[in-house]
Amino acid sequence: MPTPIDALKEKGRRLRIHSLKATTEAGSGHPTSCLSAADLTSVIFFHEMQFDPKDPHNPANDRFILSKGHAAPLLWAAYAEAGIVDEKDLVTLRRLDSDLEGHPTPRMPWVDVATGSLGQGLSAGLGNALAAHLDAIPFNTYVLLGDGECAEGSVWEAAALASYYKASNLYAIVDVNGMGQSQRTMDQFDVNRFAEKFRAFGWFAQTVDGHNYVDIVNAFDSFRRDGGTQPRALIAKTFKGKGVAMLENREGWHGKAVPKQDLPKALADLDKPLGPNEFSPKPRTGFSIPRFEGQLNVTVTRKSDETAATREAYGDALVKVAEKDPRVVALDGDTKNSTFSEKLLKVYPQRFFEMFIAEQNMVGAATGLAARGKIPFVSTFACFLSRAFDQIRMAGVSQSNVKFCGSHAGVSIGEDGPSQMGLEDLAMFRTIPGSVILYPSDAVSAERAVMEAARHRGICYIRTTRPKTPILYSNDEPFSIGGSKVLRKSAKDRVTVIAAGITVHEALKAASKLESEGIAIRVVDAYSVKPIDAKGILAAAKETGNRVVVVEDHYAEGGLGDAVLEAVGNEVKVVKLAVREIPRSGPPDALIEKYGISANHIAAAVKAF
Amino acid sequence: MPTPIDALKEKGRRLRIHSLKATTEAGSGHPTSCLSAADLTSVIFFHEMQFDPKDPHNPANDRFILSKGHAAPLLWAAYAEAGIVDEKDLVTLRRLDSDLEGHPTPRMPWVDVATGSLGQGLSAGLGNALAAHLDAIPFNTYVLLGDGECAEGSVWEAAALASYYKASNLYAIVDVNGMGQSQRTMDQFDVNRFAEKFRAFGWFAQTVDGHNYVDIVNAFDSFRRDGGTQPRALIAKTFKGKGVAMLENREGWHGKAVPKQDLPKALADLDKPLGPNEFSPKPRTGFSIPRFEGQLNVTVTRKSDETAATREAYGDALVKVAEKDPRVVALDGDTKNSTFSEKLLKVYPQRFFEMFIAEQNMVGAATGLAARGKIPFVSTFACFLSRAFDQIRMAGVSQSNVKFCGSHAGVSIGEDGPSQMGLEDLAMFRTIPGSVILYPSDAVSAERAVMEAARHRGICYIRTTRPKTPILYSNDEPFSIGGSKVLRKSAKDRVTVIAAGITVHEALKAASKLESEGIAIRVVDAYSVKPIDAKGILAAAKETGNRVVVVEDHYAEGGLGDAVLEAVGNEVKVVKLAVREIPRSGPPDALIEKYGISANHIAAAVKAF
Repeated sequence: MPTPIDALKEKGRRLRIHSLKATTEAGSGHPTSCLSAADLTSVIFFHEMQFDPKDPHNPANDRFILSKGHAAPLLWAAYAEAGIVDEKDLVTLRRLDSDLEGHPTPRMPWVDVATGSLGQGLSAGLGNALAAHLDAIPFNTYVLLGDGECAEGSVWEAAALASYYKASNLYAIVDVNGMGQSQRTMDQFDVNRFAEKFRAFGWFAQTVDGHNYVDIVNAFDSFRRDGGTQPRALIAKTFKGKGVAMLENREGWHGKAVPKQDLPKALADLDKPLGPNEFSPKPRTGFSIPRFEGQLNVTVTRKSDETAATREAYGDALVKVAEKDPRVVALDGDTKNSTFSEKLLKVYPQRFFEMFIAEQNMVGAATGLAARGKIPFVSTFACFLSRAFDQIRMAGVSQSNVKFCGSHAGVSIGEDGPSQMGLEDLAMFRTIPGSVILYPSDAVSAERAVMEAARHRGICYIRTTRPKTPILYSNDEPFSIGGSKVLRKSAKDRVTVIAAGITVHEALKAASKLESEGIAIRVVDAYSVKPIDAKGILAAAKETGNRVVVVEDHYAEGGLGDAVLEAVGNEVKVVKLAVREIPRSGPPDALIEKYGISANHIAAAVKAF
Repeated sequence: MPTPIDALKEKGRRLRIHSLKATTEAGSGHPTSCLSAADLTSVIFFHEMQFDPKDPHNPANDRFILSKGHAAPLLWAAYAEAGIVDEKDLVTLRRLDSDLEGHPTPRMPWVDVATGSLGQGLSAGLGNALAAHLDAIPFNTYVLLGDGECAEGSVWEAAALASYYKASNLYAIVDVNGMGQSQRTMDQFDVNRFAEKFRAFGWFAQTVDGHNYVDIVNAFDSFRRDGGTQPRALIAKTFKGKGVAMLENREGWHGKAVPKQDLPKALADLDKPLGPNEFSPKPRTGFSIPRFEGQLNVTVTRKSDETAATREAYGDALVKVAEKDPRVVALDGDTKNSTFSEKLLKVYPQRFFEMFIAEQNMVGAATGLAARGKIPFVSTFACFLSRAFDQIRMAGVSQSNVKFCGSHAGVSIGEDGPSQMGLEDLAMFRTIPGSVILYPSDAVSAERAVMEAARHRGICYIRTTRPKTPILYSNDEPFSIGGSKVLRKSAKDRVTVIAAGITVHEALKAASKLESEGIAIRVVDAYSVKPIDAKGILAAAKETGNRVVVVEDHYAEGGLGDAVLEAVGNEVKVVKLAVREIPRSGPPDALIEKYGISANHIAAAVKAF
């Protein structure tokens, strides 16, 4: 009489077969990494998880994240065995026209976050777990990690935060097969060491033979019984290539598909059925998540004579958008009193997540929250977002709906010096396909930027400034993505000066200076750095003798200047003013002068034309 | 009769006074973060460390790294008390013309690596420790960390690698004052928790009252007695603002200087001498490090009819430069069989450091090795270097002599898909002031690039390609930084096509194609992406009707195209071909075609002129 365990073993066998066939057909892939995790995956998918294979959007589905993304064929195999994809499509792995890519991407509706850059899955899992808590939905998130990837610090950021947030609905399953890509891992088969690390970080950890179904099933039962409020780590001892004699625990097979002529021999080790092929989904129903319909609108009520920092206006606007749209949440990396995201904490504490000094995990968790329908606003100093560039890059691959705010942009922060100055953040975010970059010059446009970001579907980056600046716009001035504003204009303008953020104010000072010398200039606030208002900028340039000066508190490479050059560089003469060396500590005004982006330098560049 | 302990207490008092005075004078800074660590710093500098205050370059000096870089005033104070800087200069903190910046940078000769972006110091410390082992010099490295920064995953990467490499010459001193920037830390005063984490990662850890000199001194003695081959962690319970009643353990004082009018009150708590003011340096002498004089030369011996991947040529050249220059070392992130850095491992295993899947620490450790006079070559997939952008940024602030190699550039890697494709790495490295970027198109130029990188003082990035490509150059062709090569030229060239790496081969195919249609084009290999050969490119463009097509296997933002635009965009018409969306899995040739950078696309762009 076959038991449920036999059915799980049979699923495991089928997962192995699919993984081998698909990678052999593709001629590439990581079959041995799939084989080590097949038994674990079988138990997770076909015994543990509650989900509706017909409905990827059921808010109460348990979630699975393949952090060891190179085992994608195993994931596709699991989807096939669950009835989510057609088994016959498995052999289209890695083809140009297939949704079954080499590493998981959200081309597949069941994949929330792209993986393949190791060490990122647990953070996305934490984001899911936080969403479940926030929405009071009892779904669990299972993250399958490799052992090699546990060397990534981001895993330990996620571990610390998961424990802090008592994410008892988060499971990390670590496939300890002892072998990395190019050699044995640091900890090899020492599963106890892995378990001790997770315990030290506050998790409830168990070790298990990753190929013993009874033990794996029992371990999950123990988690439920004894895990309490702790996140749960299952450290499984496995063998790379398990189930196929020619591959099992042998060096040199990472990332290598079994050649076609050897496939029959490999499959021969897996040809005996181990149980009935059956799976009964156990979907969880009756839950919903907060939604929002219609257009989000924000009322701006600045006083025209006030001075306000755009970073503070960010905080004000965050509260306003959160009031309207229940999906808005905020995350910050222990800088909330500097970025002013703390304003949201004060009004909606449950929707604010302090993520401490761990930016990689903060961004990864945001992608998990976004996958669950939230609109996360992630903030820290602009320069510290570079800590999470790989996570931002992967958020781009996922086209995650995450909003970023980087404060303390440029040399204008002053005495703290270069380690705290964001000077390459515009370049970083410009590389993300489809990203929107807004760099407001005053508090009014800063609030509008937050509103536009909340409305927009996709990655947005808002750059804010440390010092207070005057109000430039009336409260009802609209600021659409892709636009620009002309702040000074006359029929006699000789040069167009394009600026954003703090340099808009320098440009205005320069305009006044030059005016007293009888030279008129056009001043354009290019608040939308990406997409840039190529049309508007070109029109202004044509009216000013095809002469443009663009000035930014950012390095010369990859920022506003390059955006302008790309837009109009072929048609007009563009002079770029930017920071061109490592800056140093000093008073803000002195630094703006020293690094060539002050009103004086703008005026000189205009005259040099 | 005063004891050595009394003298240490007196130094601690003086460190506190200096920190308060300097930050009050500057009007900014982090005095409370200095006060919590003053006693620890006193013991480390004036009891533990052996160094020659007159000679920062003594290779056997013990090293101190202030990972909690915002406590810079404390470091400057320690230098003053050691006789390294003038006490009267301490009040120039943060001024435009002072070398005593807001966060430590190597403007100060004793500062090897800039800090201020948290969580990076322990990696630099590990690099120092590895150098000490390699050169058989018995110096120790002391890294002072904050507790909040231990949330950074990079700390745990460093911890794991330090244990793996048995860095018993590495000390982590954690100042557990319980308070981060905007609130209490996750673990607050739970020093045992910190110790358990370090122990789980293989360290010998002790907890101590961070204000009890006898206990601190005894702890270091215990380390020497019982630490064995383990790295050593001292977890010290402290109070932020310790020593000044109005500041001690009070919220809201992070990053705030004591106002001038309140300074006397603060100093009154510190006005009683605690012991004699004395310090006798105990320099360690008689050690030297490997040096290299003269010009490094490499002999290239490729066969003109071979095909070879530039990534493999990188590995060949790494061995050649290491043969000549004993300072060359290599680090890799478990990709050595893909980047071919493994070739160095085979010949000089002691100079190869496997850093496992932990790129942040790999880069940080490289900066530490560079500070000790090594020439580190750091390699992984180009896309994974984005994981370490903040560390690369800080290496830029330090102007570290680190060389980077990113392999698997672009869509041309094929089926692995976007998570593995480097498409923003040129943009990233272009933002680093002073960086050199070389993108060789064949194995000959790849070897030359490694040679030039080894010769050059400063950050270099070499981008390599996965597939094999034909040899384009003769073995003795020189490739200087800032140059370019003309591969196709005639008097009838209609357009200049600028390419690098894999697209050079596409450009050559396009040239042949167009030639058969009666259209001649100039083909330029812009192997030096930064600095770009503006002069050479402009000259070519002028000879081809001011028409340029630039084509790169990289996103459109921030890469070769933007480099060309910046160089010549005002004078000539530039059309950029690049990848403009998130790519997907597929065969390399199909992807090059699909994403607009193939020979067909180049030919079409030429014709469109």
